[in-house]
Amino acid sequence: MQPLPYIEKNKDRFINELFELLRIPSVSADSKYKADVLRTAEAVKEKIKSAGADTVEICSTAGYPIVYGEKIIDPKLPTVLVYGHYDVQPPDPIELWTSPPFEPVMKDGNIYARGACDDKGQMYMHVKAFELMMQTNSLPCNIKFMIEGEEEIGSDNLGIFVANNKEKLKADIILISDTGIIANDIPSLTVGLRGLSYLEVEVTGPNRDLHSGLYGGAVANPINVLCEMIAGMKDENNHITIPGFYDDVEVLSTEERAEMAKAPFSLEEYKKALDLSDIHGEKGYSTNERISIRPTLDVNGIWGGYTGEGAKTVIASKAYAKISMRLVPNQISDKMTKLFTNYFEKAAPSSVKVKVTPHHGGEAVVTPSNSIAYKAASMAMDKTFGKKPIPFRSGGSIPIVAMFKSELGLDSVLMGFGLDSDAIHSPNEHFGVFNYLKGIETIPYFYQYFTELSKK
Amino acid sequence: MQPLPYIEKNKDRFINELFELLRIPSVSADSKYKADVLRTAEAVKEKIKSAGADTVEICSTAGYPIVYGEKIIDPKLPTVLVYGHYDVQPPDPIELWTSPPFEPVMKDGNIYARGACDDKGQMYMHVKAFELMMQTNSLPCNIKFMIEGEEEIGSDNLGIFVANNKEKLKADIILISDTGIIANDIPSLTVGLRGLSYLEVEVTGPNRDLHSGLYGGAVANPINVLCEMIAGMKDENNHITIPGFYDDVEVLSTEERAEMAKAPFSLEEYKKALDLSDIHGEKGYSTNERISIRPTLDVNGIWGGYTGEGAKTVIASKAYAKISMRLVPNQISDKMTKLFTNYFEKAAPSSVKVKVTPHHGGEAVVTPSNSIAYKAASMAMDKTFGKKPIPFRSGGSIPIVAMFKSELGLDSVLMGFGLDSDAIHSPNEHFGVFNYLKGIETIPYFYQYFTELSKK
Repeated sequence: MQPLPYIEKNKDRFINELFELLRIPSVSADSKYKADVLRTAEAVKEKIKSAGADTVEICSTAGYPIVYGEKIIDPKLPTVLVYGHYDVQPPDPIELWTSPPFEPVMKDGNIYARGACDDKGQMYMHVKAFELMMQTNSLPCNIKFMIEGEEEIGSDNLGIFVANNKEKLKADIILISDTGIIANDIPSLTVGLRGLSYLEVEVTGPNRDLHSGLYGGAVANPINVLCEMIAGMKDENNHITIPGFYDDVEVLSTEERAEMAKAPFSLEEYKKALDLSDIHGEKGYSTNERISIRPTLDVNGIWGGYTGEGAKTVIASKAYAKISMRLVPNQISDKMTKLFTNYFEKAAPSSVKVKVTPHHGGEAVVTPSNSIAYKAASMAMDKTFGKKPIPFRSGGSIPIVAMFKSELGLDSVLMGFGLDSDAIHSPNEHFGVFNYLKGIETIPYFYQYFTELSKK
Repeated sequence: MQPLPYIEKNKDRFINELFELLRIPSVSADSKYKADVLRTAEAVKEKIKSAGADTVEICSTAGYPIVYGEKIIDPKLPTVLVYGHYDVQPPDPIELWTSPPFEPVMKDGNIYARGACDDKGQMYMHVKAFELMMQTNSLPCNIKFMIEGEEEIGSDNLGIFVANNKEKLKADIILISDTGIIANDIPSLTVGLRGLSYLEVEVTGPNRDLHSGLYGGAVANPINVLCEMIAGMKDENNHITIPGFYDDVEVLSTEERAEMAKAPFSLEEYKKALDLSDIHGEKGYSTNERISIRPTLDVNGIWGGYTGEGAKTVIASKAYAKISMRLVPNQISDKMTKLFTNYFEKAAPSSVKVKVTPHHGGEAVVTPSNSIAYKAASMAMDKTFGKKPIPFRSGGSIPIVAMFKSELGLDSVLMGFGLDSDAIHSPNEHFGVFNYLKGIETIPYFYQYFTELSKK
């Protein structure tokens, strides 16, 4: 099998087709984009169909639909189930984009657009790799696609879909590209993901906005109280103070931590890339540990009172924050959500009312690195990068990986091709053309090696 | 002198004319209303002119203009200088208004509109009281009007105007209605106001928004840091921890505090009106003390990160807050601004950058309650309310009162007719028709008594 000639011949079309997908603003978090999200599902269906699937269908859910497609060449051969998502993060803060988020442009070898990497670009590598295998008669096994539209808002309806379609989704392995590599010359495979609990809190003080002169000092200011409650959730060592928070945290051995510390990392370059004078985090852990084996608590958004131009002397009636915790293996998302809620409700002074609304969550996962599928992925990357990939735990969350394991009994291979610097979830998200094409080149080798290793 | 028959005959017109003024959205804090603010100055000029002034002019400043008008009947007679403002607070949060803020409506005896009380309604009482005295041949002394358009944004240009127009502004007393009474059956006169220092702070972490999974735990989250810094400014007794904050605070004697405690106040009614389970404030002080003789620190607005619908797993690059301190006599606004700035810059961890921008400030003031002017105001209220007014220290700030004293050597009489429940600076601001007409009735008596007492 030689994927390169086909890629070389078709790469401009591969990029143009991705541009078409990127032009549809499929922001699942904001209902004003509803029609666009639905339109994206249709587009993905057409693309999988024309790449060579036997059947493709749009499976409706209580939320956005799931695109399912398959090509079964022989039921006795192994089956790879590809998971991806066609929805994207909101583009805010939109004013920081140097080009409009839904008008993709090519700049310095990168494709700039919301979703360029996460996950339209990475998902579409699989569609094009499938086309390549079909066109070059090199598809060695069966393939199934399951592309959802609610990953960025918690995949609320995917679990139900999976539970109701176990027969249809039967496979030997799940293949996902929604992660990254350490660098273009340091390939890596993700073997761990953090879990997530995402909540929104509301603090209510007086029943209406008040004049800060006439009332200031005599009533609880919900913004001040919210700040105090957020500040109270961490101690001076940046340990999280929610009772029970660390109870279930997996403790790694000195050897495991020493092994992790071997991954290439430059603190100076890290700080320089983010323009930071200093890093900040839990005492007793390295930067790489803080973003992989340790849980976190971060405020993702806060608002209340007057935020316009100039000055307004007001005490707001309400203050709000969106807060998320990244979890590590053994911490159960629902349990952490409850611990947070209990703590927040108890910590509130009697002068305010608080409300906690869970948004979504998911479990942390560690994927096996001694499986046939891991080996196939490792060999495929070795083949195309010329270097064996490093197994690597990511700080991000793909909650559905744990769900696939529990519902379908299937492991996942997390073979992503993005970079940390791709600015996913940020303004000016981009994806390297090198990475996009490298993905399309590597994926067929995975199918080849996985099929071969499965036969042994 | 009998003001009531004239008021009775003209009250509908008085209300309609105020409605006209209220329809112009003169929000000085937001530059998009610039033309409206200027239009309001023109309208005020016309109203003072037609009420009977000899001359009225629009005096330009580096910001919004000041409307000046006068009626000099005899230079040997006393002169009252009326101060008011024609600008209003922003209407935000606009969705909480039950009727549009700039479409005044009458409901249950109240006029609802932004500025109904603060200060268009109260300022216009003086214009109509002037008209009344002119039409009933009862103006006993000279009158000057100085109505500005920048009170809600710190009166930045009023000081320069006053300094440059000392001769023009010569008077015996300044009369201001920009405060309130305790209740419609408990008249009061304001004898103290708090000072103000208003600042905006910005905390910058990483140079771009980051994915909270890939970076969470390893970099300073500017929202969390801002919350910690705000929380750190108060201790468990709600004392403000900024070094030197209380150094200059005037300490009242036990007798003075006992005298203050006699003012009618029901904590139960206070809590009920604001729907609070509990009050909240500095330990060791009563509610009335907390809003009058004690300084405060309140966050007036906070924002950062994702604040839209749904969930976005982002670590923001920047977080912001608007913070104000209310000050008491002897605390100097500029000094407090510096103390805050020094503290905030020093308290910032090395993992973030902070920026502090002062917005505006003003000095606290205590006005004499043994002067001829105070006596005249007290007698006027006694005449129209049938009850002697209680001298009362307000928690609000009218920074220009201290400036008038230092620049012009003039005391001010703070004879306001609003109520705490008027929701000034809040949605659904309103002003009682009772209060509006009571103001128009009371003001002429002030002129009469002040002129009589001045002769003695």
